[in-house]
Amino acid sequence: MRLQSYIQGKWVEGTGNFRNYCNAVTGEKIGEISSEGVNFKAMLDYARNVGNKNLREMTFHERGRMLKSLAQYLMTRKNEFYPISFQTGATKVDSWIDIEGGISTLFTYASKGRRELPDETYLIDGEMEQLSKHGTFIGQHICVPLYGVALHINAFNFPVWGMLEKLAPTFLAGMPAIVKPASSTAFLTEAFVKVMIESGILPDGALQLVSGSVGDTFDHLTGQDVVTFTGSAETGRKLKSHPKIIENSVRFNMEADSLNCTILGDDVTPEMDEFKLFIKEVINEMTVKAGQKCTAIRRTIVPVGMKDAVIEALKERLDRTKIGDPNNEDIRMGSLADVSQVGEVAKNVELLKQDAELVYEANSGAKTNYEKGAFYDPVLLYCNTPIEAVIPHEVEAFGPVNTVMPYNSTDEAITIANKGGGSLVASIFTADDKLARDLTLGIAPYHGRVMIINRNSAKESTGHGSPLPHLTHGGPGRAGGGEEMGGVRGVLKYMQRTALQGHPTTLSKVTNKWLHGADVQEDRIHPFMKYYDELVIGETLVTHRRTITEADVINFAGISGDFFYAHTDDIAAKESFFERRVAHGYFVLSAAAGLFVHPAPGPVIANYGLDNLRFTQPVYPGDTIYVRLTCKQKTEKEPREGEPPQGVVEWDVEVFNQEDETVAVYTILTLVKKS
Amino acid sequence: MRLQSYIQGKWVEGTGNFRNYCNAVTGEKIGEISSEGVNFKAMLDYARNVGNKNLREMTFHERGRMLKSLAQYLMTRKNEFYPISFQTGATKVDSWIDIEGGISTLFTYASKGRRELPDETYLIDGEMEQLSKHGTFIGQHICVPLYGVALHINAFNFPVWGMLEKLAPTFLAGMPAIVKPASSTAFLTEAFVKVMIESGILPDGALQLVSGSVGDTFDHLTGQDVVTFTGSAETGRKLKSHPKIIENSVRFNMEADSLNCTILGDDVTPEMDEFKLFIKEVINEMTVKAGQKCTAIRRTIVPVGMKDAVIEALKERLDRTKIGDPNNEDIRMGSLADVSQVGEVAKNVELLKQDAELVYEANSGAKTNYEKGAFYDPVLLYCNTPIEAVIPHEVEAFGPVNTVMPYNSTDEAITIANKGGGSLVASIFTADDKLARDLTLGIAPYHGRVMIINRNSAKESTGHGSPLPHLTHGGPGRAGGGEEMGGVRGVLKYMQRTALQGHPTTLSKVTNKWLHGADVQEDRIHPFMKYYDELVIGETLVTHRRTITEADVINFAGISGDFFYAHTDDIAAKESFFERRVAHGYFVLSAAAGLFVHPAPGPVIANYGLDNLRFTQPVYPGDTIYVRLTCKQKTEKEPREGEPPQGVVEWDVEVFNQEDETVAVYTILTLVKKS
Repeated sequence: MRLQSYIQGKWVEGTGNFRNYCNAVTGEKIGEISSEGVNFKAMLDYARNVGNKNLREMTFHERGRMLKSLAQYLMTRKNEFYPISFQTGATKVDSWIDIEGGISTLFTYASKGRRELPDETYLIDGEMEQLSKHGTFIGQHICVPLYGVALHINAFNFPVWGMLEKLAPTFLAGMPAIVKPASSTAFLTEAFVKVMIESGILPDGALQLVSGSVGDTFDHLTGQDVVTFTGSAETGRKLKSHPKIIENSVRFNMEADSLNCTILGDDVTPEMDEFKLFIKEVINEMTVKAGQKCTAIRRTIVPVGMKDAVIEALKERLDRTKIGDPNNEDIRMGSLADVSQVGEVAKNVELLKQDAELVYEANSGAKTNYEKGAFYDPVLLYCNTPIEAVIPHEVEAFGPVNTVMPYNSTDEAITIANKGGGSLVASIFTADDKLARDLTLGIAPYHGRVMIINRNSAKESTGHGSPLPHLTHGGPGRAGGGEEMGGVRGVLKYMQRTALQGHPTTLSKVTNKWLHGADVQEDRIHPFMKYYDELVIGETLVTHRRTITEADVINFAGISGDFFYAHTDDIAAKESFFERRVAHGYFVLSAAAGLFVHPAPGPVIANYGLDNLRFTQPVYPGDTIYVRLTCKQKTEKEPREGEPPQGVVEWDVEVFNQEDETVAVYTILTLVKKS
Repeated sequence: MRLQSYIQGKWVEGTGNFRNYCNAVTGEKIGEISSEGVNFKAMLDYARNVGNKNLREMTFHERGRMLKSLAQYLMTRKNEFYPISFQTGATKVDSWIDIEGGISTLFTYASKGRRELPDETYLIDGEMEQLSKHGTFIGQHICVPLYGVALHINAFNFPVWGMLEKLAPTFLAGMPAIVKPASSTAFLTEAFVKVMIESGILPDGALQLVSGSVGDTFDHLTGQDVVTFTGSAETGRKLKSHPKIIENSVRFNMEADSLNCTILGDDVTPEMDEFKLFIKEVINEMTVKAGQKCTAIRRTIVPVGMKDAVIEALKERLDRTKIGDPNNEDIRMGSLADVSQVGEVAKNVELLKQDAELVYEANSGAKTNYEKGAFYDPVLLYCNTPIEAVIPHEVEAFGPVNTVMPYNSTDEAITIANKGGGSLVASIFTADDKLARDLTLGIAPYHGRVMIINRNSAKESTGHGSPLPHLTHGGPGRAGGGEEMGGVRGVLKYMQRTALQGHPTTLSKVTNKWLHGADVQEDRIHPFMKYYDELVIGETLVTHRRTITEADVINFAGISGDFFYAHTDDIAAKESFFERRVAHGYFVLSAAAGLFVHPAPGPVIANYGLDNLRFTQPVYPGDTIYVRLTCKQKTEKEPREGEPPQGVVEWDVEVFNQEDETVAVYTILTLVKKS
């Protein structure tokens, strides 16, 4: 069997220079892999000219629906991937994390794209900036998709999730991608991409796959492209300093080796739930994926008085861990992903032994049972001088290997954790939230994610090792300095932020959002009598006026039950900030609605929300108010069963007094029928 | 005179290996510069151990007040810097941009720090993420200052602004800085830093200055440090690929040469205001700072039919530009910053001539008047084949040099602009907002900033060449791929974003903000009767109940004037989304206030705002509601003249019905007396 690449819309086989890839469990050859013969420059151009064009013209909501369809399709075929995954040495649980965890990332981004991003091809970033006294020159940031292609160079450990967690934000941003999986497990990625292509859901050029090396791809990268890299620090550094990356300032998002740690709080005793949860998590992180997770715990930092109890508990649990062929359902831990890694891990364990003593090794004799497979038995070490030692904070044995380290104080625990020089994740097990705060703020600058577990959060926790699409994944320094996912934050990695300057009317036209100071249009038809599609951005209603009287204030107090002294107590009001009795803010709001609402049935279904309300001046009995209501932004809503087609219309509301001073500003959200 | 460095709290002189620096106008030697003898590793450690500790312990508001005091102090001494600035070849206007523009950046960040950031040492980034079904495991991002130091390597052209625009966000983030100015104009930076240090406002270790080379500084950088670089692409690339930068994933923010452009819309004719504004801006960008601005217009893109009119108008204006000694007040254009640059610019003009013809050169004979000064007369070129040509899009003559380029269609204008390969800024002159939109969205992926000018925005415009602290400054690709300023966005460049996971109670304790699902505390004293300092995050009031009746709805319609059919028209309401008459949302809000407000005079001064209101369920006559009010976040307020000491308290409000279903959620903002 020869793995294929998917280039320029076609499946192609390498023309020579093949490398073997093997079953990690049996060590037997499965097939060959090579990308020789691929025209990498043409591949990049195809992505830019065909894929980019197709994706950038879609709105975020369209891209989100595309991700959802893709995820739904993949779920119908997920069972095809498990038998292939077992050949990578992954157990059923490991495979579930990879396959279904990956697909669930698509679902999350599909949903975030539709809930948190606009129905436009670009994103309005932040609020407008007032740059001038009279408001004729303002600023507004937008984010637009780059014109290039994202090249994703992935690690061997999660052939599916590792691809999908990057594709989801890439596609949502409107950029095409080229995926280059690690050769040893590329057979699972290739099988998965075949199904993605078969779905017919992705537009032409959105996705290409390189099975084998990327050849001279780097020589053709531009500043509109993005490279992400997950893998060893050594390879990462080489790629990051490639002349074209440097010369063209190509964005390079790297995620490399990381000496992640877990800290047991010094409030925890062996009887407490937090102790058991801690032991369970350490074992889990050592054995899931045979410890071959970039987020796995490598350093176990415990109060000095607890080290024996921790080591004993870990040994006892490790003894019970069944290791072997993942096709066998009661196996807890499978093999490494590749036989070549057995030697790598062993070499690093030897290095670790220079600074740490071995406290546990081997249990099931797995090595002898699977001589040809990539099996490696768990190893537990103990480093008695973690502040002085260097190796346990720098050498990562990428397998089921963990070093226990003692600490004497909170400051010491922080120092030890930070000696990792930058990690993807740290976890803290404590029942003391004050201690959690001190540890968290102390280690946060060195960690991309910090998980705090106690008996209350443990049950629903997703675990130390699981990056989630909602949260950023990455870490500073040794961890590569990258940042992936994190919801919309991850999407922005594939977009250019551009600061726009100009007149509010111009920038409203550019952004399709009414900005304060932009021209408005009045019409004789009340805007609440217009359907969604009829409404124009900037359409305005200036209402009739209403004089606020003392009777209003008293009646409003009566009906609301709000007898706050500033409204109803002449004596106290005189001594207050307001200097005399003032109308309720909530009455100003209510009276404003009375002024702008059109009472007859019409296209407006409901006013379901209100944002950013500020009362900017008091309204006193005798003041006369009026309202300016302006159509600010429109967002299509996906049709739901039984609902008429509708959209969300945001209205800017300004309430003025008789001096034309603003007394309140806010935005209201309405649902408006499409026709 | 020998320039000094400010290292480890002391002013020191170099010990040898001096280089001369000269007056740019006269060419005469002013003094010598060298940093030989500085212990760069000790300098870094001092910043990390002393400066970082001092700054990271301050809150954003404290840091903001520090920036404000510093800016106020510098304004009192600004006149000292003008005579020094003239020696760099800068005119009075050029110097004003540098000196007062720089100080105003401090003011803007001082204000943004206090208005847009919390009174904490860290920032809560975004909303909490619901990660579990029952809400016992949530996510929340925070940003914390890094533990390292920011090394700012600045360009020669803005010795003051170039320093301050980076220092402002650095200090606000809580990081110390080391400034390394370009040698040719370091004498102005040194004079300025002396005054900053004399102010006594910055804490120890916050600021150090290297006059001369940075020696082996790069060899000691870690992943907690940040390097910013402004200058030539060549130097930038060298520094960016330094082994320590690559190995430790040191953040590197680069801003390099950029072939910025301006586009004249094809709607503009010579009689229109936009034409005159366009000509004026091109001349301005050629002559201010003698064209030595990283944002200056290098490429002038005009409709093919307008090219002669544009060239004639530019020539006519250039003829009138007075060039010479900036001490002379009627001089419009001074010299380059350094005599060595005269040759550099001339060399690049020769290169440009390969692809473009010379259409204007020399006017005032300045060169002969100032043989020894760094003077260079304006040069205008015309490139007839801008789509095929390469040099005018790649070679930047960093002086008063500009190339006019014709286009035939909007698509062609976009193509030409984007051939710059990534620029800091582009401007568009058009009276047609639709054209502005097409051009802007077409060029945005290649530009960090796009300014659109017409007759309405011109008067208050700050100009093509002015980066503003509110907006991001930087550009992709050739421009270096960096991003500076942009308000809070720039501050985040010096912070680590960390994703926290845990129980809401734990994360509330860590962040000092009440998060949904966190524990609450009830007290017998009404929270509105407590002073700011007495209130505890998580303090809750569960109110008595109120049954909403038909009379309430009718009375509320009467008093508000809101007779929307869903509240008052039985027939239409039955056919609506609500299926029967429903209470006004604004009544639910008002009645909720009636339930939670404490009427007697007390510490609560006013309810001045409301955020993120969503009506989640209709309330029908007969429903019974109650409210849970929870103290969510507290922010100190700076005392104002005549006001009692007070703070802002944000309250989370949830309104429930008799089924304990949420009917409305929102946040209210109150001012509460401190005592």
